[in-house]
Amino acid sequence: MVRIPVKTSSCGYEGVIEQNVLARAGVVLRALLGSAQPLFVVTVPPVRRRWGRVLLQSLEASGFSPMVLEMRDGERFKRLSTVEDLAEKLVKAGADRKAVVLAFGGGVVGDVAGMLASVYMRGVKLVQIPTTVQAQLDAAVGGKTGVNLRVGKNLVGTFCQPQLVLIDPATLATLPEREFRAGMYEALKCGVIRNAELFARLETSSIKTLRRDGELLTWVIAESVKLKAKIVSTDEKESDLRRVLNLGHTLGHALEAATAYRQFLHGEAVAWGMIAAAKIASEVGFCDPGVYVRIREAVLAWGALPRVNVQTGKAMKLLQSDKKTERGVVHFVLPKEIGKVEIVKNIPEHAIAAALAEIRRASRG
Amino acid sequence: MVRIPVKTSSCGYEGVIEQNVLARAGVVLRALLGSAQPLFVVTVPPVRRRWGRVLLQSLEASGFSPMVLEMRDGERFKRLSTVEDLAEKLVKAGADRKAVVLAFGGGVVGDVAGMLASVYMRGVKLVQIPTTVQAQLDAAVGGKTGVNLRVGKNLVGTFCQPQLVLIDPATLATLPEREFRAGMYEALKCGVIRNAELFARLETSSIKTLRRDGELLTWVIAESVKLKAKIVSTDEKESDLRRVLNLGHTLGHALEAATAYRQFLHGEAVAWGMIAAAKIASEVGFCDPGVYVRIREAVLAWGALPRVNVQTGKAMKLLQSDKKTERGVVHFVLPKEIGKVEIVKNIPEHAIAAALAEIRRASRG
Repeated sequence: MVRIPVKTSSCGYEGVIEQNVLARAGVVLRALLGSAQPLFVVTVPPVRRRWGRVLLQSLEASGFSPMVLEMRDGERFKRLSTVEDLAEKLVKAGADRKAVVLAFGGGVVGDVAGMLASVYMRGVKLVQIPTTVQAQLDAAVGGKTGVNLRVGKNLVGTFCQPQLVLIDPATLATLPEREFRAGMYEALKCGVIRNAELFARLETSSIKTLRRDGELLTWVIAESVKLKAKIVSTDEKESDLRRVLNLGHTLGHALEAATAYRQFLHGEAVAWGMIAAAKIASEVGFCDPGVYVRIREAVLAWGALPRVNVQTGKAMKLLQSDKKTERGVVHFVLPKEIGKVEIVKNIPEHAIAAALAEIRRASRG
Repeated sequence: MVRIPVKTSSCGYEGVIEQNVLARAGVVLRALLGSAQPLFVVTVPPVRRRWGRVLLQSLEASGFSPMVLEMRDGERFKRLSTVEDLAEKLVKAGADRKAVVLAFGGGVVGDVAGMLASVYMRGVKLVQIPTTVQAQLDAAVGGKTGVNLRVGKNLVGTFCQPQLVLIDPATLATLPEREFRAGMYEALKCGVIRNAELFARLETSSIKTLRRDGELLTWVIAESVKLKAKIVSTDEKESDLRRVLNLGHTLGHALEAATAYRQFLHGEAVAWGMIAAAKIASEVGFCDPGVYVRIREAVLAWGALPRVNVQTGKAMKLLQSDKKTERGVVHFVLPKEIGKVEIVKNIPEHAIAAALAEIRRASRG
């Protein structure tokens, strides 16, 4: 079991990573909460079908009487209306202020259930049990919650630190390959940001190897969570150090928004965004062209990504409405070398246009 | 100008009370914020029509360029969907993380705009400028925000402390008499809770006198805000001391929910709830019957209240789903004497039934 402490200005908690820890969730939660509190498991049908029994049996064996609240699966249900539906289900299930919400699923579940926990009766306890690569590596730690508006992604949300993040790498075995791969781009991102060893191991590993090699997978998750924990620990709210985690997100979000969140998985959009950021960095002389090439090759070595058809004008407009934009100035996280990034503003439009042209071209193979 | 400091565990701010301070809002905000930040005024059509120009001219004269975002007026628009609409308007208006939301209106505006400020881009600054009695006396100070679910009132919300609460008693002059009166029951409530002098002055003042006598009105508001500030200062989140402010709310909320928030103004429901709480206290021997009679007479002296037709069974069920209920145990704030209340649980059903019968009877005159 790897235990990674996360300390924020308001509280502290642990990320716990262990193969098959789901079957021991009851024991871990009982130790954390002291007594058997009312648990409400927010999840989606596929996760419930595959892993629900393992979790529920473990919780029941430890004296809990968990209730399951289902939400619909998919990024387009990451909306305030879903939070509202779940809140009404909580009321009907008799949840009071002692309720503990368990977010059991991928990033969407973590975001929605986290938002739910932070607003239900002005805040109840939250435990994150992520079951996708992206959520295990990144989303479940850090306390950010968010839902989408029609006009953009994650524009409404809260900071809601969980009591615990419980990570079972075994749950990744049943993910569709495309989704597994999309998540792994986030690990690659962690490598680019601050961990050259992680990048190097990923750059030389195929996706098949990563899926098969449980030990390597656990190490990759732990390294990524450590980075997230370190960054979150020094900076609970948004500031420079935390913002570097948004490498690839600036253009990634624009790609997702431009395609109504339907064409790209989040990690795939971030992968394109990461290539674009590297291209911008190279274009403005912020990094060596070799850094760009290495990042592009590492990303594309895992296989083809969905095509990019977004026109430059549309992307520029979406960048302006991104919540990381301040007074119209777009900030980019750019790689300086592998393992080192910085926040750069006032990027010339021609560099963004060149990067967009580059990823459109690269996506055609 | 009366300045009342409010200190919470996370921050401090002031309640500023002054006749016609609206016309000086720009100067006050400029002093608070330092520079001219982007201001977004959330309001409802009647408030905008009557007071919008005074506020906007004052803000513009101080170098701000405020934008106005309208929401629909009424308790039934206190929903997450309204928060979502306003968030989309903020995005379209170019609001970024430096945005300052001004909640300009009554309790509903304060709740919705407060919730908006606490979730928009995971939190922007908030200034409360309440324009109704209830909001000036109570709601605008304390940092509670909330919206309703179909199944109950204020079940979803946040704690979001404002940077400032700016109170202009002059705005109350244009309120409909019914609404003014409904709000004043909250002042009476403050008297019952902790201020026998306030209660005594209110019990001997007619509503007409209160409306006409600006000095008395300012004093009444200041005394009520001081109580709220004192309670909030010792206890940001919900605990016993803060809960006493809920005198009259337990049954009041049930009355509102049972009538789909249409029959009673909030203050009217609280007024009935306060009489009911006093009756329960008298019924179980917690207070002298004379205390009950004095509270009932003070409330009813200001004129008839809307009829209570809610049956006991329905009210009991609604009490169970109230968010102040913990594991099915309903808590009541009961008066011990004028100026002193306590939280009491495990009230026998017969006492609640007797109180409901009493307010049904009293409402028939």
